[in-house]
Amino acid sequence: MSFFPEVETVGYEGKSSNNPLAFKHYNPDEVVGDRTMREHLRFSVAYWHTFTGDGSDPFGSGTMLRSWDRYTGMDLAKKRVEASFEFFSKLGVPFFCFHDRDIAPEGSTLRETNRKLDEIVALIKEYMKTNDVRLLWNTAQLFHHPRFVHGAATASNADVYAYAAAQVKKGLETAKELDAQNYVFWGGREGYDTLLNTDMALELDNMARFLRMAVDYAQEIGFEGQLLIEPKPQEPTKHQYDYDVASTYAFLQKYDLVDHFKMNIEANHATLAGHEFEHELRVARINGILGSVDANQGDTLVGWDTDEFPTNLYATTLAMYEILKAGGFEKGGLNFDAKMRRGSFEPVDLFDAHIAGMDSFAIGLKVAYRLLQDQVLDQFITEKYSSFHSGIGKEIIEGRTDFKKLEAYILDKPIIKNRSGRQEYLKAVLNQYLLEV
Amino acid sequence: MSFFPEVETVGYEGKSSNNPLAFKHYNPDEVVGDRTMREHLRFSVAYWHTFTGDGSDPFGSGTMLRSWDRYTGMDLAKKRVEASFEFFSKLGVPFFCFHDRDIAPEGSTLRETNRKLDEIVALIKEYMKTNDVRLLWNTAQLFHHPRFVHGAATASNADVYAYAAAQVKKGLETAKELDAQNYVFWGGREGYDTLLNTDMALELDNMARFLRMAVDYAQEIGFEGQLLIEPKPQEPTKHQYDYDVASTYAFLQKYDLVDHFKMNIEANHATLAGHEFEHELRVARINGILGSVDANQGDTLVGWDTDEFPTNLYATTLAMYEILKAGGFEKGGLNFDAKMRRGSFEPVDLFDAHIAGMDSFAIGLKVAYRLLQDQVLDQFITEKYSSFHSGIGKEIIEGRTDFKKLEAYILDKPIIKNRSGRQEYLKAVLNQYLLEV
Amino acid sequence: MSFFPEVETVGYEGKSSNNPLAFKHYNPDEVVGDRTMREHLRFSVAYWHTFTGDGSDPFGSGTMLRSWDRYTGMDLAKKRVEASFEFFSKLGVPFFCFHDRDIAPEGSTLRETNRKLDEIVALIKEYMKTNDVRLLWNTAQLFHHPRFVHGAATASNADVYAYAAAQVKKGLETAKELDAQNYVFWGGREGYDTLLNTDMALELDNMARFLRMAVDYAQEIGFEGQLLIEPKPQEPTKHQYDYDVASTYAFLQKYDLVDHFKMNIEANHATLAGHEFEHELRVARINGILGSVDANQGDTLVGWDTDEFPTNLYATTLAMYEILKAGGFEKGGLNFDAKMRRGSFEPVDLFDAHIAGMDSFAIGLKVAYRLLQDQVLDQFITEKYSSFHSGIGKEIIEGRTDFKKLEAYILDKPIIKNRSGRQEYLKAVLNQYLLEV
Amino acid sequence: MSFFPEVETVGYEGKSSNNPLAFKHYNPDEVVGDRTMREHLRFSVAYWHTFTGDGSDPFGSGTMLRSWDRYTGMDLAKKRVEASFEFFSKLGVPFFCFHDRDIAPEGSTLRETNRKLDEIVALIKEYMKTNDVRLLWNTAQLFHHPRFVHGAATASNADVYAYAAAQVKKGLETAKELDAQNYVFWGGREGYDTLLNTDMALELDNMARFLRMAVDYAQEIGFEGQLLIEPKPQEPTKHQYDYDVASTYAFLQKYDLVDHFKMNIEANHATLAGHEFEHELRVARINGILGSVDANQGDTLVGWDTDEFPTNLYATTLAMYEILKAGGFEKGGLNFDAKMRRGSFEPVDLFDAHIAGMDSFAIGLKVAYRLLQDQVLDQFITEKYSSFHSGIGKEIIEGRTDFKKLEAYILDKPIIKNRSGRQEYLKAVLNQYLLEV
Repeated sequence: MSFFPEVETVGYEGKSSNNPLAFKHYNPDEVVGDRTMREHLRFSVAYWHTFTGDGSDPFGSGTMLRSWDRYTGMDLAKKRVEASFEFFSKLGVPFFCFHDRDIAPEGSTLRETNRKLDEIVALIKEYMKTNDVRLLWNTAQLFHHPRFVHGAATASNADVYAYAAAQVKKGLETAKELDAQNYVFWGGREGYDTLLNTDMALELDNMARFLRMAVDYAQEIGFEGQLLIEPKPQEPTKHQYDYDVASTYAFLQKYDLVDHFKMNIEANHATLAGHEFEHELRVARINGILGSVDANQGDTLVGWDTDEFPTNLYATTLAMYEILKAGGFEKGGLNFDAKMRRGSFEPVDLFDAHIAGMDSFAIGLKVAYRLLQDQVLDQFITEKYSSFHSGIGKEIIEGRTDFKKLEAYILDKPIIKNRSGRQEYLKAVLNQYLLEV
Repeated sequence: MSFFPEVETVGYEGKSSNNPLAFKHYNPDEVVGDRTMREHLRFSVAYWHTFTGDGSDPFGSGTMLRSWDRYTGMDLAKKRVEASFEFFSKLGVPFFCFHDRDIAPEGSTLRETNRKLDEIVALIKEYMKTNDVRLLWNTAQLFHHPRFVHGAATASNADVYAYAAAQVKKGLETAKELDAQNYVFWGGREGYDTLLNTDMALELDNMARFLRMAVDYAQEIGFEGQLLIEPKPQEPTKHQYDYDVASTYAFLQKYDLVDHFKMNIEANHATLAGHEFEHELRVARINGILGSVDANQGDTLVGWDTDEFPTNLYATTLAMYEILKAGGFEKGGLNFDAKMRRGSFEPVDLFDAHIAGMDSFAIGLKVAYRLLQDQVLDQFITEKYSSFHSGIGKEIIEGRTDFKKLEAYILDKPIIKNRSGRQEYLKAVLNQYLLEV
Repeated sequence: MSFFPEVETVGYEGKSSNNPLAFKHYNPDEVVGDRTMREHLRFSVAYWHTFTGDGSDPFGSGTMLRSWDRYTGMDLAKKRVEASFEFFSKLGVPFFCFHDRDIAPEGSTLRETNRKLDEIVALIKEYMKTNDVRLLWNTAQLFHHPRFVHGAATASNADVYAYAAAQVKKGLETAKELDAQNYVFWGGREGYDTLLNTDMALELDNMARFLRMAVDYAQEIGFEGQLLIEPKPQEPTKHQYDYDVASTYAFLQKYDLVDHFKMNIEANHATLAGHEFEHELRVARINGILGSVDANQGDTLVGWDTDEFPTNLYATTLAMYEILKAGGFEKGGLNFDAKMRRGSFEPVDLFDAHIAGMDSFAIGLKVAYRLLQDQVLDQFITEKYSSFHSGIGKEIIEGRTDFKKLEAYILDKPIIKNRSGRQEYLKAVLNQYLLEV
Repeated sequence: MSFFPEVETVGYEGKSSNNPLAFKHYNPDEVVGDRTMREHLRFSVAYWHTFTGDGSDPFGSGTMLRSWDRYTGMDLAKKRVEASFEFFSKLGVPFFCFHDRDIAPEGSTLRETNRKLDEIVALIKEYMKTNDVRLLWNTAQLFHHPRFVHGAATASNADVYAYAAAQVKKGLETAKELDAQNYVFWGGREGYDTLLNTDMALELDNMARFLRMAVDYAQEIGFEGQLLIEPKPQEPTKHQYDYDVASTYAFLQKYDLVDHFKMNIEANHATLAGHEFEHELRVARINGILGSVDANQGDTLVGWDTDEFPTNLYATTLAMYEILKAGGFEKGGLNFDAKMRRGSFEPVDLFDAHIAGMDSFAIGLKVAYRLLQDQVLDQFITEKYSSFHSGIGKEIIEGRTDFKKLEAYILDKPIIKNRSGRQEYLKAVLNQYLLEV
């Protein structure tokens, strides 16, 4: 039985191919620098958007009818697993990601819920044996159920906090069981709607305690994947504590957690916070906390998380540039936390959208690699900052100066000469590299 | 000679007064709780907006002709000092603030510039002797001159860095000389326009070195005021490193500077960063870094820094609430980093605008004080979080639990009951308190 | 049987009341100018938020469990009607509004759906006989069902267009049957997600044809209420054709529909479009198309429609100012298109939220009325524009001049004197009026 | 004498060229469809940014020292003309644009100002005789001088209105004298800062009277260029009346001016208003009012007009798509209303920036042309809307139906089938076309 009978398989056929369902740029075995594209990009399918998402939005019910939708309960959960592995295989994608509640329904107690979860995890493990697909990361969904109305690790209710803790405990066990590369924390309800009723200090202290317990438990069970926090500024809450990379970094430092967590950076969350995608990657990179990426894109002219498939080649290029600069992914990858528009409701759109995203990042990889190889930006930057390589600049860098010495140096100097930043030229060069991919 | 002959003096005349230039709510000697309004609010006039600002904007030249504008050079600088002390006195304001370049013009070398500055500082000191006006803070203007095109403490040119260091050195000396309560760092050019030409890591390392040298020098000369950093997300640069309180706190922690700096929080910078004013104050408060406030307001429907005089009573109330919660100002104060609209170009507008701002904060103080006295929000919050006062919640707070215990506690619990956050009710209560001021 | 046993009734008890569920400012029988508060404000409850809304958001399922939720299908629909009239009565609200699909479920064909609708409409009519509650407006919900994925009156599928037409036909009949004061068009899916697949010209032509047919049918059946269009810039679509009042006015003029439609202006839609609420009201007022108001508020620091209950007294005052200036509502009213926050999930919050909104508009009415009575703004404006009351200004206004005459008048005039706009003063005056309510 | 001795001339050298100052894509003589690139693109240099701009911003003085800056007054004005024609010639650009005050300074009366203007206009005319450069448009600068503090055609002071009228009269004469293709109205101060002091109705009536007089005078002197209005939502005012194309279209219709004016659409103004550039072009195109384009780009993550040189190839492609769909420019063109970043202050940046912009639009033209040739989008759209080509859809289009017929048609139809909008696929196709340029 097939859930996607309309698609045989998706392969790389080069630019001359007329098969609409083929990669034009993503050639998994092509070597770029020190590894293949497959190894560089480590693409992952998001289970929630692709297998449980239905195209609904705040103003409308689902448009996407899937062939597995005729099942219910645990049958539906199992059929989704079956469908997902068919999809992974046809698309040729090496990783996937899920929240606990994406893969199995809740029961009336957490014990019962865990039992259902165990059953599906076992099934997934079975499928993984015969498929070359691995789990990039899993996470606990701590935002959908009404119990999390006031947060999970920052709940104002200790029972909810305990529930969340137990759920993450199970999540770490699942990660261990399925050999996940990472485990992710996204705090969709960890924030506030109004300060009028919020004890921010208590909530943040509690969140730190929670993460500390998670670190301890992960070590206890020997989970060796990365622990990742995914920043997002707002939505569904008005303010989410993990607002952006810098805010999260402040939190991790304050509570002495910085050695245990890295960032899972989502493009659309970056722009919602007022930052370019590459900015968030850069901030994480220079602070040694770049862990993994949620590869999507937003619409900067609307104010909510649109989670579009990434097709903007500027963004994919500059993202891959930061990732290559960071030495490439080790355990992280590019997870398509992206959904088709509500109007793209046919099964073929699922393939098209993933192909569009994968090709866009493949192009980005190739352009970024050439920019690095040719040292286009590096050279420019080296020259721009060259005054710090000798003389007074070198003393500054080496910490061998102070305000008095600097004053003596500059006090009678009549003119300081700067050099142009040449932003327009660099943007034209970027276009050249893009078109010559 | 008078620069403001049209105004005698501004006093508090109570609600029945018909004098349009009187305070309706700011009664400096009225005691609110443990101190007078004058002591609570510590209002300060911003020299740049009030005495050097002219109403110009990116699309137009100045509209505000002042009586001192017929002078030039050092004469102009001196007349401005004279005018400012007349203004402080008539308005009855206890503090003022300035950038070095607001009060004196540049010379052809920094040595010459410093000489001019010294002359004006001496004059100001003279005026301060016979006036009950103190310096809330001063700062170095490191953004206007073309030399700072690529930053100051984050410049790509070591000479510029040295120049900035020397200028801040002089600024700290000025602060010491005039007994400033604080010294402020606002990094208007400390950021980037494009990552394509920016070495973010080097720039941030350099900024940290710069601030470390500032701390050392302040200690060396015995300056006892607070050192403050003023966050702003962007403008004039696309991205400014001190984006918001959280980002700045991340930076301070990373470079081990957190014990030496507090925040100067501006309302309009908060909203430009996507935060409520009270959010930024709260984040600073709970991290012990709330230093001082730039009291203005922005227009959240436009995307630039409008620096309007603060008249929104919700904002002034919630700001004063945070300030009172923090124990009130010690060395900080409320500096009107605010300018009249370009269309409000008459001298009387200068008084009106300051009166509007001072009255708005006086109202905010009174409302906030009553909210605190009546424990309106505190009581609600105490109840909302009451589950953390005993049982499992208490164990969580006290760090006496772990994921396994929490799981055991919750695993078979069928239902969790939350309580309403009652945001609408709390907002109605806030309105009641506001109207009953 | 009672659905709200916890609340007896909500009445006005004056400022001294300690009953938390009483109006502090809304005294329906108090006369303000030429009519009572009840007649001025014409409050309406939104059926969808209050009786079908459940607190769900894009990241979570409903939190609000209501006593009628144990019913299903038509029984649920009937119980909701019962609950709604109990609520209207206890709150003392004179109007309500609904979408067709709020009050009754769909059947398998439109014929069957209409039959269900008829049954509930008959029930509502029965309730209206014995209650002093009228229908402010009804509307057709043309956005929730997947058939409307690409729009309704702007659908790319003629069958969908026909369906929408038939649904609006029924809506107009319902309006007639229940003696609605207005019938509203809100085009939640009338827009586009990407221009790449959109024939904007065809869609707008079709929308005009649709509205023309609606006008014709309303006349045919003798419906005498106002036809209203509700602008919204975006969400759920990326771009909605009725972006704001000005855009909608452009459309109405182009298709010669301006005599048949007025605006239903929502506060939160105004701010999403980058405008103040009062701006949209003003634009509608001066073009004679101010019809009715959706009374809510948004959060200008987040980018989606939050539909909060209106509590900002600046907004309610300036809105009522425009409404009074327009002569007050004739058929329109203040519909609370507002929902409690997800965290305010208890039945008492329903009352609190409406009371908060009603009191806020009652305050706004009183402040606005006094501003008008005292001609505070009018007088200032009259003086500001006084140069147009005589001389060359009068000639301009009366169209008795041309470029040559104006040039001759001004060519040798050396100086033009303007007067200050005094924005800061006016804002302080507004605060004074607000606090003296 | 040369103002740009460092640059010989900029030519097209094909992709293999290593000359950094050569066009890589803009080959003026290359034929694309029915005309050459030069004829398609009609590039224009903005005098204000390129010859009077100095890199200053609200927080800093100019960084761009030009070789003509050693002159002052009328000498400076003349040297700028000389420099500009050298620049036009070296760049090979066929058009330029200016505001009256860009090219000549003001005198003490308008008569004297006009005299100075005449002198420079005569000089420009002389240069135009021997250069193949034409005037795309000119305009009157009605926003910089303090007299325009409250607007020009919407001033609250009749003298200011008269001054503006006289200035536009002169502007139209200048346009006629220099054979401008268009005359532009940009109302930088035509709007308001607060409604509290604004008579919007009077101001808009006056603006309409003003434009009517302009039409009459243009006809009287036989000016045959297009009259264009340039929408912008805000900045410097909080709200500008010509907010976007739709708002301006509403205004033109109301005052019966729609036959006399077209739009000059600026990319950055589009995004400031919350619209894509291509959206504004589309709205203008389908309403027959697409006149000309200000070719720049904004930064959608900051909230002010950045006026960057256009390098985003998605934007240039989709803009050229709309322009080609409209039949190409007749009198309009692509004016670079763009400035280098403050940090790009060297003369070579002036060339680089223009080359970057011109190449980006040349690429856009080529991609758009191929999209049209291959009917990629047209074909998709034709199919998507095919139900309107026959049957009930055809009747709708032809106006041969009504609500009753449509109801009868659909009332018993059980299922409606839609087709996918395939947005992700179309975006991937767009990428393909872009990379194959």
